[in-house]
Parts: sequence; C-alpha cells; structure tokens
Amino acid sequence: MNYRIDNDQIYMTLAKGELINKTLELYAKSNEIGCAWINGIGAIEDPEIGYYSLEKKSYNKKVFSGYYELTSLIGNITIKEGESFSHTHITFSDIKYQIFGGHLFDAKITAAGEFVIIQGNKNIKRKMNAEIGLPLWCLEKIF
Amino acid sequence: MNYRIDNDQIYMTLAKGELINKTLELYAKSNEIGCAWINGIGAIEDPEIGYYSLEKKSYNKKVFSGYYELTSLIGNITIKEGESFSHTHITFSDIKYQIFGGHLFDAKITAAGEFVIIQGNKNIKRKMNAEIGLPLWCLEKIF
Amino acid sequence: MNYRIDNDQIYMTLAKGELINKTLELYAKSNEIGCAWINGIGAIEDPEIGYYSLEKKSYNKKVFSGYYELTSLIGNITIKEGESFSHTHITFSDIKYQIFGGHLFDAKITAAGEFVIIQGNKNIKRKMNAEIGLPLWCLEKIF
Repeated sequence: MNYRIDNDQIYMTLAKGELINKTLELYAKSNEIGCAWINGIGAIEDPEIGYYSLEKKSYNKKVFSGYYELTSLIGNITIKEGESFSHTHITFSDIKYQIFGGHLFDAKITAAGEFVIIQGNKNIKRKMNAEIGLPLWCLEKIF
Repeated sequence: MNYRIDNDQIYMTLAKGELINKTLELYAKSNEIGCAWINGIGAIEDPEIGYYSLEKKSYNKKVFSGYYELTSLIGNITIKEGESFSHTHITFSDIKYQIFGGHLFDAKITAAGEFVIIQGNKNIKRKMNAEIGLPLWCLEKIF
Repeated sequence: MNYRIDNDQIYMTLAKGELINKTLELYAKSNEIGCAWINGIGAIEDPEIGYYSLEKKSYNKKVFSGYYELTSLIGNITIKEGESFSHTHITFSDIKYQIFGGHLFDAKITAAGEFVIIQGNKNIKRKMNAEIGLPLWCLEKIF
C-alpha cells in the first residue's frame, strides 16, 4: 500500500493482492486513527460479504469467487475494543454489469485500488448493543 | 439520533426505528444547515424509493418490504422553499446479496446507521426547473 | 454546468445533456486540479460502462440505453499523461429499481446532476503499470 497525507485527507492506493479492510486497519492502528470516513473504488477478487440477521444476531456470509469492479466502498474507522476498526459496505459489478454487495468482511485488490480517508479529530468508540447484537457508535450528544 | 460535531464534519448514528431523511432534515432545520454532503451505511427496513419519469414529471414509487443492508447512501442537504431539504440516493442488498436502489423517499434504521455530514459554508438554494419538473441547485458561477 | 467553490469543496450541478466525466475533466483542466475526490447523484441517460479484464488488459464495454437514476458516483481526479483525468465508478437503477454499474466511461445528465469535489493540495500522478495494464496512482510513502 502506498499513501499520501494531505491535511485531514489520506489518499491510498492498494496493490494487487492486498486486502482492503485488513490494510486499512493495520494503517489505522499504526497511526492511531480512531475516527475517519472512507470512500473507495477499484477492482477486487473473491469478496467475502455479509447480510446481518437481527433475528439470529449474526451475519450470513458469502464469498463471491471471481473478479469484480468495486463500484462503491463506503465506511468508517472507529475504535472497537480499544483498537482501530474498519467498517465498510460495498457494491461490486460482474462481467454482465450486475451488482451485488453488502457488509464487507474483506476483499483483495486485483487492479486499481483507490481510497480516500477523511479523518476526524476525536475518536469514536463502539460499544456492544445487546438488543442489536453489534458494536455501535457511542456519540454523546442526543438529538 | 446521537451525533458529534468535528469541525465541518458531523458524525451521526441513528437508532433502530429512526427514519433517515426525516432525521437528517430535522437536525438540519434545527441547526440551519443549508449546504452539506452526506454519506452513510447501515441496515434498513422497508425503504421507499423512487425512479423519476421525465415524461410524467413525477416519481414512480415502491416500498421494498423487509430488511436490507444499506450499501450506500449518498446525497446532500440544501434549501428548498426556505427550509433544509435532504436529497439522498441509496443502494441496498437483500439476503441473496442482490442490490436494489434509487431516489430515497425514506427508510427506517434497523441495526447500525452510520452517517457523516460534511458541511459547506454557504447555503445552496433549490429552484423549480419547469423543463425537468424538479427543484434543482442554483449555483451562480457558470462553466 | 454551474458551480460554487467553498474552501476545498466544489459543489457542481450539471445541466440536462452534459456528460459527467467530460465536464469534470474540462473543469479540472481549466482549474489545474490534480488531486480531488468526487461524489455524485442524479439521473442519467445512456451510460457507457466497463468491466476490466486483467487477462486481456482491456475493458469490456457496454452502453445501457435509456434513463436511469444515478444511485452512486464515486471517483477521483488525478493527473494522467500531464492532464487532469476523471476516474469514476457508478451504480444506477432502472424503472424496476434493479441496479447495474461499473467503471464509467461517460453518461449524460437527464434531470438533476449533483456533485461535490473535495480537493487535495498536491497532485497525484498516474503511471502505466505494465502488469495491470492501467495507469495507477503514484504515491511516495510505502506502508
């Protein structure tokens, strides 16, 4: 992965074979990033994605074997159990231009992998929500 | 809804049962936000979405009953008829990881609902465009 | 196309009939923009999209005739062969709310066309990568 820091923006390009969430998290941990918003596009291989079942309080998972255009990656970096955590959702297209997607466990870059991370100034912590079964953002101000 | 203001960024997390556009608009009206860009991910229920017909100058509408991953929400807050207005488009995935989407009328959060609002400094007003049938952005500079 | 510059953000609205990438690139060239992140939504006509084949080192291309909601446009402006270059991926929905997408060659705006460009401070150059067959971002720092 190569990158450039540009004020509160970090531009990143991942190389063929690098995992998206793993790389984002390793970078975030190394640099103590606890609050950021992420966007990305590129091309990916074998994405493992999920659909959350509120009833079962767990993810259905599927690996989509093959090569896809990464049409959208949107997500964020926050702090889960004391460490930087990358939560991203994606859509991707196959050779027929059909789109699939969901919660991203991880996916390997195959060609371009172009990302921007826009940093916030103060960490966002996640805390397990028993009703939902997921660690949700803790933000103090209530509206 | 809980939130945190971080310079020109506002991080928001919506609770289970809260409507996305309604909540964004109520917050924007309360805080006199007239120009902002929005991104979001999460999980939603019963989204009502639209496809605009230029011929009829109106939206075809459909409610997708059930639970979905919110794979992308992209949009903006501007001023329509003197009030903050949230214009957002979404894609969402079902249990088979198929994706649907369009113009978002509104959707309820079911699990996570994670949003960032990046504010501009000066309001953008919308004005009805008779040819299109929609209130479009008014920006002074022409290219 | 009409626009407004708001610190490092540029808000743009494209008129009916204007091509997205062509307009973004002409604006970027005129204003010497060499690093920016892009988001957009709106409604489009006859998008020409691509799916990259690593094996053939070229894009499969298809024009989707007709009118679609632009559910997501994500991409960036960088420098390719000395000139501003717009690299964008899109998803779009048809009248049945089905989604298609991929690498965007170009698409015409039909109704709204609402974009934000967030500028970086220093150009990103692309350089042809022989293994991939595409001009990829050159960023100095290695992680």
